[in-house]
Amino acid sequence: MDITKTIEWQKEDNGGFSRMIDQSVIPYEFKKVDIKTSKDMYHAIKTMIVRGAPAIGIAGAHAVVLGAIENRKSPNFYEDVKKTADYLISCRPTAVNLSWAINKQIDLIKENKEKSNDEIIELLVQNAVKMENDDIEINKKIGDYGSSIVPKGAGILTHCNAGALATVGYGTALGVIRSAYQKDNTIKVYADETRPRQQGARLTTFELTKDNIDTTLITDGMGAYFMKKGMINVTITGADRIALNGDSANKIGTYMIAIASKYHNIPFYIAAPKSTIDPNIKTGDEIKIEYRDTNEVSIINDKPICTDKVKILNPAFDVTPNGLIDGIITEYGIFKPKDLYKLFE
Amino acid sequence: MDITKTIEWQKEDNGGFSRMIDQSVIPYEFKKVDIKTSKDMYHAIKTMIVRGAPAIGIAGAHAVVLGAIENRKSPNFYEDVKKTADYLISCRPTAVNLSWAINKQIDLIKENKEKSNDEIIELLVQNAVKMENDDIEINKKIGDYGSSIVPKGAGILTHCNAGALATVGYGTALGVIRSAYQKDNTIKVYADETRPRQQGARLTTFELTKDNIDTTLITDGMGAYFMKKGMINVTITGADRIALNGDSANKIGTYMIAIASKYHNIPFYIAAPKSTIDPNIKTGDEIKIEYRDTNEVSIINDKPICTDKVKILNPAFDVTPNGLIDGIITEYGIFKPKDLYKLFE
Repeated sequence: MDITKTIEWQKEDNGGFSRMIDQSVIPYEFKKVDIKTSKDMYHAIKTMIVRGAPAIGIAGAHAVVLGAIENRKSPNFYEDVKKTADYLISCRPTAVNLSWAINKQIDLIKENKEKSNDEIIELLVQNAVKMENDDIEINKKIGDYGSSIVPKGAGILTHCNAGALATVGYGTALGVIRSAYQKDNTIKVYADETRPRQQGARLTTFELTKDNIDTTLITDGMGAYFMKKGMINVTITGADRIALNGDSANKIGTYMIAIASKYHNIPFYIAAPKSTIDPNIKTGDEIKIEYRDTNEVSIINDKPICTDKVKILNPAFDVTPNGLIDGIITEYGIFKPKDLYKLFE
Repeated sequence: MDITKTIEWQKEDNGGFSRMIDQSVIPYEFKKVDIKTSKDMYHAIKTMIVRGAPAIGIAGAHAVVLGAIENRKSPNFYEDVKKTADYLISCRPTAVNLSWAINKQIDLIKENKEKSNDEIIELLVQNAVKMENDDIEINKKIGDYGSSIVPKGAGILTHCNAGALATVGYGTALGVIRSAYQKDNTIKVYADETRPRQQGARLTTFELTKDNIDTTLITDGMGAYFMKKGMINVTITGADRIALNGDSANKIGTYMIAIASKYHNIPFYIAAPKSTIDPNIKTGDEIKIEYRDTNEVSIINDKPICTDKVKILNPAFDVTPNGLIDGIITEYGIFKPKDLYKLFE
């Protein structure tokens, strides 16, 4: 899909601003929005105008530049930008890419503290743009490695949106699908709706049909039915945070289809950049699961779907244990969960 | 929940008509509609104004009475009513209760063919009313037997709506929950939304909160997450058709949570009357799965959730194989799938 970059820094003399596709209005509208303050970026991440672990990483990198611009004249430049950074990290606790990218920027400030604030801002901009370009390159490598595990004519189940829209471009799980499609245009994709936010229905089907990839929307309860019918040969999703043992947090519902895949002897793969792996945590038990507003469950298209008397729970992610994962597809190759530590040696 | 009967024959001098809760407008409205022709009944079943295997069984029984009234003066009474009956059975192919109840009425006509059409119509009305009352009695027995398998303070996962609204009253899976609640008001119910039609969100939470039973709405992808957290101790659903070996067709998504239950060593039970068991089929492979309008997947609250370029599949049911089922709770007791044949000896 030619959507240029999902999120892209716009350079200007005063530093510039962030421009991103507004993912909250797809598939009804396809438009970009400009984010010019760190506070607006917090809001954009929180309300999922930008979402997807790698994309919100870049959004975080941009937010630090915006925070730096806002504090250009501050005598406590580092401390003030760091405060903005910590506030941004708190916005979405599960995806590690957000803190990873923000901390890269903060480290850059620390390493260059002898320079002027203006010079540091310029370095932050350069670094953010490099991260954008790296992200696309990384995804293409993930796609190249991953396409090897897609059988000819395969039916592929995916969940949520780990696509161009979840990254700067190309996508992780959908990057694998794009690369596989270039070799074999007979593959078929089954896209889970992915309640509550419906990223599969709203974003993945939008992306893949634009690329003419054969895509079928199903609801989240249907995967096992189509597995049993032999229509699904491999399951591929993205991830928001991966522990060093390979336990992988991803959109709620992923664990369910991983279990169903195992039950049907269907390989289950995670596609994610190294930056999604958190070497600081040993197992998935340490991953904090974000609970989001219950209105995401109870209201669809501005109208409730249930009585207001009922309780609701809305965990945004679940953790798929390493035993259910056949491989983690990264820009450095495909790793068994137990071998993931080698990436950090 | 005091909703009197979900569906109830209204006697009049000319035979009468069917009155039912309009389930298509819950939770926004709670109203009854009168169905006075067999054609309107076909429409009511097809569009799910009435749904739930036992309830559409009664709707079928009522429809035969309406068909008989419409053919009161016909010289080919039996043949004409039979034609109406066959047309009605085609309306929803998976739930066996529909054909079971319709055939009971057709047999009654055959057994009484020496009687006048007026007399037969009176017998059909009596039989339909008896079926209504039997249904409630059967559900209370299912509830009594089933409550024994609910641990104290249990978290219970259920899918779709197998409640008072799916039957004439009390419910099957929710009947078990009601009976369990009478013994122990600390139980907690987790109700799957049940896409695409959202019967869990729209109907189950409506029913159970009216009865003050602690109920939490979750989306269809969340069950495994809460199982892993130890919040779910038993899974109970209804069924639409059960093969003689215990393979059970129920609302799409049931198979997925049965697999997840097995993975977590959580007992999985089906609650259904004997009339849901089809002794004519040996295994679930013989159960015809109804595919419904794809708009049920793509449109929610009158607005699309996806691009119109995407393909959609909408199987309404799946089959849970007997190996995943710990017991089938009937009005005659709880049966292991392998012992189900004993009900027909």
